[in-house]
Amino acid sequence: MTGTLSGTLMGIGVGPGDPELMTLKAHRLISVARVVAYPAPDSGESFARRIAAGVIPASAEEIPMVVSMKAERFPAQQVYREAAERIAGHLEAGTDVAVLCEGDPFFYGSFMYLFARLAERFPVEIVPGVNSLNACAAVLKRPLTARNDVLTVLPAPLPDDALRERIEAAEAVAIMKVGRHLPRIRALLDGMGLTERAGYIERASLGEEHVSPLAEAPETAPYFSMILIYKGIDPWLT
Amino acid sequence: MTGTLSGTLMGIGVGPGDPELMTLKAHRLISVARVVAYPAPDSGESFARRIAAGVIPASAEEIPMVVSMKAERFPAQQVYREAAERIAGHLEAGTDVAVLCEGDPFFYGSFMYLFARLAERFPVEIVPGVNSLNACAAVLKRPLTARNDVLTVLPAPLPDDALRERIEAAEAVAIMKVGRHLPRIRALLDGMGLTERAGYIERASLGEEHVSPLAEAPETAPYFSMILIYKGIDPWLT
Repeated sequence: MTGTLSGTLMGIGVGPGDPELMTLKAHRLISVARVVAYPAPDSGESFARRIAAGVIPASAEEIPMVVSMKAERFPAQQVYREAAERIAGHLEAGTDVAVLCEGDPFFYGSFMYLFARLAERFPVEIVPGVNSLNACAAVLKRPLTARNDVLTVLPAPLPDDALRERIEAAEAVAIMKVGRHLPRIRALLDGMGLTERAGYIERASLGEEHVSPLAEAPETAPYFSMILIYKGIDPWLT
Repeated sequence: MTGTLSGTLMGIGVGPGDPELMTLKAHRLISVARVVAYPAPDSGESFARRIAAGVIPASAEEIPMVVSMKAERFPAQQVYREAAERIAGHLEAGTDVAVLCEGDPFFYGSFMYLFARLAERFPVEIVPGVNSLNACAAVLKRPLTARNDVLTVLPAPLPDDALRERIEAAEAVAIMKVGRHLPRIRALLDGMGLTERAGYIERASLGEEHVSPLAEAPETAPYFSMILIYKGIDPWLT
């Protein structure tokens, strides 16, 4: 590769859904990208691509990383292995690659599977994005954390005992990836006397968002849904 | 107020420091604002204002909320009471007011003190921003959370026992507002055998940022500094 500079692997957070919640930096970098990669479901549209659709140049080469969303198992590493190879080819040739990431690249994202394979070989730049936590608190219109609150973020698939213990030890709690776990989590929070302190949000910042007290949540939840609980003293109410 | 529509109180996250990490929405709303409020220290520049300085219209009325940063006590409520009154006057007259918030408005911010006083009387819109957590992970170039990790965010002023217990129960930990607590936190993490898994970041995304392993952190830390600890299995390294 004498005389050739490597391209940069760019992990770009595109925010929680509303294209206007992209950062100026994400917008600038995507708008001049020559190669754009993103996760995509095996049927339907890529959520990350949809957020940035108005910015991706028509001339850009697109690399969808198609992973089955059916089971809640962790993404097929074979898909990321192949995508990493293809991306490495571009980086070796000196072309930057923009990887679009829902929310923030390093906040529960699949970007880490590319990062793991490429970060030691190529320059990397991470562009942080607005994460779903802050987006959900914004549409719920309730502060997430105040003063010296402890905030704990819990993935819903954890077992009840693990959830209970950590909810007890925090003032503010976010339960992510609620999806099919909704009935179980509702029962758990009800048993802890926390239902009245919990809000439910799905598809925050998108047109079709749903926001309500947990008690009024629908029977079934999509994967992109969250429960926010505030157990601390409400400093903004006193 | 017959025939007059209220203005909207807008809590606008301006991100962690780099003006390019403002969202497109924050940029748009600030660029047409007629009244702009922001927290400011009793000496020196307002950090939130500095981030948005290139966007605030010259014609905008500015409302600095000057709070002493010297002690770590909670902000003087008198300042927010007076600011809320002045802002309420604009909202009653039908003028929107943009409140600039470092990071995200509902993530450990002082915006809640205005929100508490005004949210029941006036329409509110919250524009989420990139928070310091995601900004720090980006400059550290290490994923914050993976898969089903538990993430806990801890304010450094908490006592050692409270910190230790919560660090033990999480895979990923962020310790915020490190400042003068740095020596104590270092000793605590050292005693827990976690120093090698901890990164130190100050002023993330600004030109003058400092990023290093905790072992190489400086002796003294500014208020806007953070320690990130990853205790989980490193899925991105396997």
